[in-house]
Amino acid sequence: MIKNVLGRELPNEINGKKTIPFMGVGKYRPEGKKAAPPIPTCADYPSDGNKVVSSLREAFERCGLKDGMTLSAHHHFRNGDKVVNYMFDVAHEMGVKDLTFIPSALFPCHEHLITHLENGTIHHIEGSLNGPLGRYCSEGKMRGMGVLRSHGGRYQAIQDGEVHIDIAVIAAPCADPFGNANGVYGKSACGLLGFALADSQYADRVIIVTDNLVDFPCAPFQIHGNLVDYVVVMDEIGDPKKIVSGTTQITKSPDRLYIAELIARFIRDSGIMRDGFSFQAGAGGTSLAFAVYLKEMMKEKGIKARFIRGGSNKYLIEMLEEGLTDYILDGQTFDLYGVESIREHPNKHVTTSPFTSYNYHSKGNFASMVDAVALGATEVDVNFNANVVTHSDGVLLHGIGGWQNCLFSNCTILAVPSFRDRIPVIVDKVTTLCGPGELIDVIVTERGIAINPRREDLIDAVKNSNLPIRKIEEIKEEVEEICGGKPQKPKWGDKFVAAIKWVDGTVIDAVRNVIF
Amino acid sequence: MIKNVLGRELPNEINGKKTIPFMGVGKYRPEGKKAAPPIPTCADYPSDGNKVVSSLREAFERCGLKDGMTLSAHHHFRNGDKVVNYMFDVAHEMGVKDLTFIPSALFPCHEHLITHLENGTIHHIEGSLNGPLGRYCSEGKMRGMGVLRSHGGRYQAIQDGEVHIDIAVIAAPCADPFGNANGVYGKSACGLLGFALADSQYADRVIIVTDNLVDFPCAPFQIHGNLVDYVVVMDEIGDPKKIVSGTTQITKSPDRLYIAELIARFIRDSGIMRDGFSFQAGAGGTSLAFAVYLKEMMKEKGIKARFIRGGSNKYLIEMLEEGLTDYILDGQTFDLYGVESIREHPNKHVTTSPFTSYNYHSKGNFASMVDAVALGATEVDVNFNANVVTHSDGVLLHGIGGWQNCLFSNCTILAVPSFRDRIPVIVDKVTTLCGPGELIDVIVTERGIAINPRREDLIDAVKNSNLPIRKIEEIKEEVEEICGGKPQKPKWGDKFVAAIKWVDGTVIDAVRNVIF
Repeated sequence: MIKNVLGRELPNEINGKKTIPFMGVGKYRPEGKKAAPPIPTCADYPSDGNKVVSSLREAFERCGLKDGMTLSAHHHFRNGDKVVNYMFDVAHEMGVKDLTFIPSALFPCHEHLITHLENGTIHHIEGSLNGPLGRYCSEGKMRGMGVLRSHGGRYQAIQDGEVHIDIAVIAAPCADPFGNANGVYGKSACGLLGFALADSQYADRVIIVTDNLVDFPCAPFQIHGNLVDYVVVMDEIGDPKKIVSGTTQITKSPDRLYIAELIARFIRDSGIMRDGFSFQAGAGGTSLAFAVYLKEMMKEKGIKARFIRGGSNKYLIEMLEEGLTDYILDGQTFDLYGVESIREHPNKHVTTSPFTSYNYHSKGNFASMVDAVALGATEVDVNFNANVVTHSDGVLLHGIGGWQNCLFSNCTILAVPSFRDRIPVIVDKVTTLCGPGELIDVIVTERGIAINPRREDLIDAVKNSNLPIRKIEEIKEEVEEICGGKPQKPKWGDKFVAAIKWVDGTVIDAVRNVIF
Repeated sequence: MIKNVLGRELPNEINGKKTIPFMGVGKYRPEGKKAAPPIPTCADYPSDGNKVVSSLREAFERCGLKDGMTLSAHHHFRNGDKVVNYMFDVAHEMGVKDLTFIPSALFPCHEHLITHLENGTIHHIEGSLNGPLGRYCSEGKMRGMGVLRSHGGRYQAIQDGEVHIDIAVIAAPCADPFGNANGVYGKSACGLLGFALADSQYADRVIIVTDNLVDFPCAPFQIHGNLVDYVVVMDEIGDPKKIVSGTTQITKSPDRLYIAELIARFIRDSGIMRDGFSFQAGAGGTSLAFAVYLKEMMKEKGIKARFIRGGSNKYLIEMLEEGLTDYILDGQTFDLYGVESIREHPNKHVTTSPFTSYNYHSKGNFASMVDAVALGATEVDVNFNANVVTHSDGVLLHGIGGWQNCLFSNCTILAVPSFRDRIPVIVDKVTTLCGPGELIDVIVTERGIAINPRREDLIDAVKNSNLPIRKIEEIKEEVEEICGGKPQKPKWGDKFVAAIKWVDGTVIDAVRNVIF
């Protein structure tokens, strides 16, 4: 067992690879060259460009799927995905065992994978372990360790060759027989396909699965057919109703609306809201509400943003259409208004990906150029460290998503209720450490705003405002009083079940099994 | 000395690397993995994304430019380029020697490079050797061998690691401080920047040079800032008048107009012109004219193409606007109508690159999916082999461009006058072999159309037409009679001065020095 610079205990090895402990932001220096797939030749591919085969099984067979390989998939269909479970049903049918699975994220609809973890088809999953899969892992039942990476960290790991994908399966709402694909046309339109970019670039073999085969050229193409081996047509790759929904409702909770308003006021009163500024607004009720408040403040002061980082949704599209921003930079797409706008205003939407926005092993990325970002967290501590993967019960529940990557914004704001279900969210020490305090600038709760003491500039900027600025310790104590004490600690087992990677591939924390 | 499968004599080594002789189309099998650049880290790049440095010299110094390195540049500014000569002036000023230069092409405006070949700054050039540089090389004056590659072959060579670029200089008509860049906005707008794609992906260091710096994000970006190290602002990177001109004049020669008409009639009468078909029309008077004839025939028969491969120009844009094609697939851009249309109709233009269209070491490419292409040639022989880099005088004069790559079209048509300056163009054996006869289907001259005997299907398809179909030997003999015999052979020296690569990196021919 080793300890990293933040004092977190880590196993020496993770799935057979030596652990590199987190060393501090920007401290670890990568060596060597990027990964590189085998050199193919056009001589092995049909000259008419038709790569369609009859079934996913045939594609797997032609790709040489065998025991112990690594498969990948993206999560752009969210809880409406119909491909991931099917992939492993087919692999199981073929009698293949011990696969490693590297999804960009998983959702409750993927609970079915537990069957394939149990029957030996899947060895372990390196990717977000949400809901039932998270609990399964926390119970210590998965054979390998879970490895949780941010969206940028996943790109980095694949690019750097830390993980090698043998076969990538990329579900696409629109594709041509050559394998060019996009996510903006078809009944399963999900907007973008950027989370599959690394897979398409670095996997040995790439299979496109679509329910909407169009004549060449599928335009625009976000996935290049030149990287694709086979194309499979299925009846239905996703449930359109579940692909883009559930993220467009503004919160109705008065506390959360108040938090959203405080965020907007902080951005205004600190001077961040100025002509040409930028911000990121994610999914989720509080983020949506913050954008709506900010919109009104921008209109009132006649301020225009240079860009907003999406996912695009109804509210951001309205800002675009009202001329309140030059561009929306989309990484994913959160509702049908977003999908439609990408089709209709291609000059106003900039397609981004985990490579452009989040990859830390790059010559810079977009995340650090965003003036302000508002994110959530499951816990924050008095050192401004934060948690997004477990609550204080220690059970894996959420993925990291782009959260770690967004912390590089010039002003990172965490929007958190000060307690949930009478359990304090502001704590002495986060249960699982996903984001180091040195990158977290502002914590906004319904009981006030705490600014990281490192950010004297921000403290100065709002000192004459009427914002409720407080010390984080003060808020913590108040909350403990209300809740009747600190949160209960989980009953940890002695097995490491998951590693939390930092954006550079080092390990920022590890999670033990929980005795229920 | 070795001989390849076509009987062409080749040196054992080319610039210190063992020659792999051409083995026939699709016969050579690449091994190993693609090249991979070093893994960078965001920690080394400014978090505000501003990579602007004061001068190209400073950028070179920061990149560690030193003796013996390899530099690259693109040719999207054609004969109006102002960056390439300047690059080497700066390198010379710095006292750097023995550089290898890998441009995507060179033009007469680059004659100045001879100074730097003479003063030792440049060791040799691997790229098209047009005009004065070609003659310099043919005189045996360059220290290393010239290596001529097609656009796709250049991508393949860089991708496969056959050539390694230390520093790429990418001139961009529009760029932001992060290095995102496009070619469609600004006074030097040239349309696309695809010829710099491989450079941006595989070079160790990448410098963007622009005369139009815009706020982040430069949208759309064809070059990813995430791959860029430094951005340099110059007053003028190109002469707009020369960037997009000289290719938009339809030929006035009655012979060439007749050839153009014959091509269009062949495509119509052979049945290739059908709903959903595709064709490629390059620059140059005959190609332009052929498209104009074809357009009228398509309108007459109510036929619509699925796509046309450009460079976009006035005539193709008219076809797009009149609904005669769904898409234009652009690799470069040939006039200001093309540039304008790419800006205005982003949904109707598909940006392509040597990677998507031409790279043979890929999982297929677009070139083989084009139904018909009309190209030029300097010589063709009775076995349908063709030459594009020298005339029968053996002096290097032209680059290969996309010519070799386009030969993979399902119907490759070479448009050639049967003689030039009273020298026959149809010969017994081409002086320099750039394209193997097995890929060349039809030769159209003002004296008739010759179909490759291998293409019985095409012979059949037009047998009842009134097209002037003739045997190639018959045309050749007629032309020799008119010209008073076969072309004179050049007086070859005994030094190999240049290698002609095939699309897979093998060597299809080598060129000796010429005694003048």
